[in-house]
Amino acid sequence: MNKYIAECFGTFWLVLGGCGSAVLAAAFPDVGIGLLGVSLAFGLTVLTMAYAIGHISGCHLNPAVSIGLWAGGRFEAKELAPYIIAQVIGGIIAGGVLYLIASGQPGFDLVSSGFASNGYGEHSPGNYSITAALITEVVMTMAFLVIILGATDSRAPQGFAPIAIGLGLTLIHLISIPVTNTSVNPARSTGVALYVGDWATSQLWLFWVAPIVGAILGALVYKAMAGEKES
Amino acid sequence: MNKYIAECFGTFWLVLGGCGSAVLAAAFPDVGIGLLGVSLAFGLTVLTMAYAIGHISGCHLNPAVSIGLWAGGRFEAKELAPYIIAQVIGGIIAGGVLYLIASGQPGFDLVSSGFASNGYGEHSPGNYSITAALITEVVMTMAFLVIILGATDSRAPQGFAPIAIGLGLTLIHLISIPVTNTSVNPARSTGVALYVGDWATSQLWLFWVAPIVGAILGALVYKAMAGEKES
Amino acid sequence: MNKYIAECFGTFWLVLGGCGSAVLAAAFPDVGIGLLGVSLAFGLTVLTMAYAIGHISGCHLNPAVSIGLWAGGRFEAKELAPYIIAQVIGGIIAGGVLYLIASGQPGFDLVSSGFASNGYGEHSPGNYSITAALITEVVMTMAFLVIILGATDSRAPQGFAPIAIGLGLTLIHLISIPVTNTSVNPARSTGVALYVGDWATSQLWLFWVAPIVGAILGALVYKAMAGEKES
Amino acid sequence: MNKYIAECFGTFWLVLGGCGSAVLAAAFPDVGIGLLGVSLAFGLTVLTMAYAIGHISGCHLNPAVSIGLWAGGRFEAKELAPYIIAQVIGGIIAGGVLYLIASGQPGFDLVSSGFASNGYGEHSPGNYSITAALITEVVMTMAFLVIILGATDSRAPQGFAPIAIGLGLTLIHLISIPVTNTSVNPARSTGVALYVGDWATSQLWLFWVAPIVGAILGALVYKAMAGEKES
Repeated sequence: MNKYIAECFGTFWLVLGGCGSAVLAAAFPDVGIGLLGVSLAFGLTVLTMAYAIGHISGCHLNPAVSIGLWAGGRFEAKELAPYIIAQVIGGIIAGGVLYLIASGQPGFDLVSSGFASNGYGEHSPGNYSITAALITEVVMTMAFLVIILGATDSRAPQGFAPIAIGLGLTLIHLISIPVTNTSVNPARSTGVALYVGDWATSQLWLFWVAPIVGAILGALVYKAMAGEKES
Repeated sequence: MNKYIAECFGTFWLVLGGCGSAVLAAAFPDVGIGLLGVSLAFGLTVLTMAYAIGHISGCHLNPAVSIGLWAGGRFEAKELAPYIIAQVIGGIIAGGVLYLIASGQPGFDLVSSGFASNGYGEHSPGNYSITAALITEVVMTMAFLVIILGATDSRAPQGFAPIAIGLGLTLIHLISIPVTNTSVNPARSTGVALYVGDWATSQLWLFWVAPIVGAILGALVYKAMAGEKES
Repeated sequence: MNKYIAECFGTFWLVLGGCGSAVLAAAFPDVGIGLLGVSLAFGLTVLTMAYAIGHISGCHLNPAVSIGLWAGGRFEAKELAPYIIAQVIGGIIAGGVLYLIASGQPGFDLVSSGFASNGYGEHSPGNYSITAALITEVVMTMAFLVIILGATDSRAPQGFAPIAIGLGLTLIHLISIPVTNTSVNPARSTGVALYVGDWATSQLWLFWVAPIVGAILGALVYKAMAGEKES
Repeated sequence: MNKYIAECFGTFWLVLGGCGSAVLAAAFPDVGIGLLGVSLAFGLTVLTMAYAIGHISGCHLNPAVSIGLWAGGRFEAKELAPYIIAQVIGGIIAGGVLYLIASGQPGFDLVSSGFASNGYGEHSPGNYSITAALITEVVMTMAFLVIILGATDSRAPQGFAPIAIGLGLTLIHLISIPVTNTSVNPARSTGVALYVGDWATSQLWLFWVAPIVGAILGALVYKAMAGEKES
């Protein structure tokens, strides 16, 4: 059970930290952290948890990552379901805690805030089309898995993977928040969308399908590059 | 005595660096560092001191961290009092030095500046309620202790804990400055509140109680995840 | 073939991530990531790929780097052509994918956006002269090669080179985006200029010549400093 | 000679990168990097050079650091003069190259730009008094030396010192740019002040005296904390 508790807590931290920074601090008057601060926050949730719980659960915190690691031959199929369930539960708890905090500000309105939900078309931060959103989520998750599989390859420098993977998630957000608010993680999308409902839940399918497709592609790309000696 | 001097100096640096960046640079006209810069500064005080004095005192710099490490079985009870006293003294000295610098600017007013004090309700940067402040400080400190206990676990990569813990504190600030100005550290809160007095001292209790409760919870959460093999 | 696929994919990621952050997120209204975010993004593409594929191809991602490493005695001449071809192909594919995403925003105009192309004179972001552009690109690439050759010297701490090199590229962008939009990498310049055409392709020569000259100078400077014991 | 060339080149990079980011990019319209970007740039010059040339010269890049290391028993007195001369020469060359680049922008005016010179009173960015400037430079350099001596102590994790020291310099800038434009390094101050002349050279004394005093204090503080086992 230890590893499932760790995945649940780690994903809780990812959603609370990443979406929390977006909801609470991104647009704070005059001195807000902006999309750069939100990008850093998302990455640091993973960097911190990878050092804190990597030795317990491997610190996936993301159903697409678990599936990509399985596709890359690094994770057992039988563990997929419990990991994904633990991650989604952690994300949903985070959404609830974030709601409790955010609603402590006078004038907070859950729906008009968007609550850091992912979206496309009129619900994309920059009004990007569904096609742009699909390409973005697939390509970003593909690159994320290449980074994860490469940085944890036995031939890569040991101990640095949390830095590469965490800052890789920061980079992905620096590129793609304007397009989809950046998911690459179905648990993160689900954890906030359930509270917003409406458009956020009706667009949620894309943020399960595209990251999972991208993760599997990333595993194939890494296998093609890594050669026989990979481990 | 070496370790008490180190804790005192390290906490001095944490409060001078973190609160100093907030008071002196956050809202500098046009090119100010904003909440993102302040978040980075707080984290870097811990990252730098953890490499500089970690081998001397363990680099707690925070009464809640010392208590959380004790709750997690990593720190002796008899050391709690001298560590906490050294930390609070370091924080108060930092507040004094910061006052000397800040008051060198024409027009500086200690009270209207807020002097980076922590607060809730009308003294929260975003006017968040006391309930939101309590939840935030408890949950943030809880996660901070999970990061600290995990990154210093003997099974985690060695040498990287200062990066994980320092950038973890950056992350906590990226999320929660708008709610409470972020404490998670009673010595940091005390070090500036004593100079402001008034509301800052009357709200100070929350920034002792909530971080300590959160730290103990974090120790329990980490123990639940870490299993028998923890060390 | 593995290493050529890795160079192609890595350069794809460098151009998509760096130029993508510039095109999609730099000037996003109110919360855009600015030149600081773009600088971080460029550096993180290299940091992440160096950990992910460094053990496969050495992670050059840049014709000037490959040439500088050859001039520094670290890379074989016969590998130059296939590496450079793979890098340029990767850059061009990235430009295409970025176009697909960016054009999914209503009102996107490729030419007026500049598409993160490098330029001088009236096409320099700050209208810097061709002389300033030449000096900047030569000096920045020279320093980049000193960082690369030094951080991968057998006497330097092992495993940290991706951090030094990636954040070195961030630093270079923090200095020089206003002058040339920062190249120091002919594959990055080519990958976007081909889509813009016109002035971007007619100024492209400088972003091949200056980085290559700078890289060779950097190799000479490092050799002069490093002494006999270098390896 | 290798180590003197390395110190000269490294200080060249520190001044070109740090002051260059300030002059060229800090206040770029709408998307400028601000004081946060300049702080990051200064720190990254040291981080990158420490990995690149640390094994050649120790990477001081700063007369105050060389003197502080001597005071701390880590550096030979006979090496002080050649190191400091090499550092100042490197700083002055950087000022010249930066001038060549900056003057390539139409309308550039050396004097009105300030050219990233350090100052106090009416030449402090925030009009801070000479007393505030003195305290700031002494205390910041003191803490810088504690970080340097601690992170390179044989008991600290090996290989991480460039990260601690580089990001320590970033932190120092996050706090103190508004007060003095941040020196803590006489070579950095001299390298740009000589081009501005006038007030910049007449205030230069403070940015030699205060950092050197602070560095010696830092060595004493570290010795008091470190105990017998230091090495």
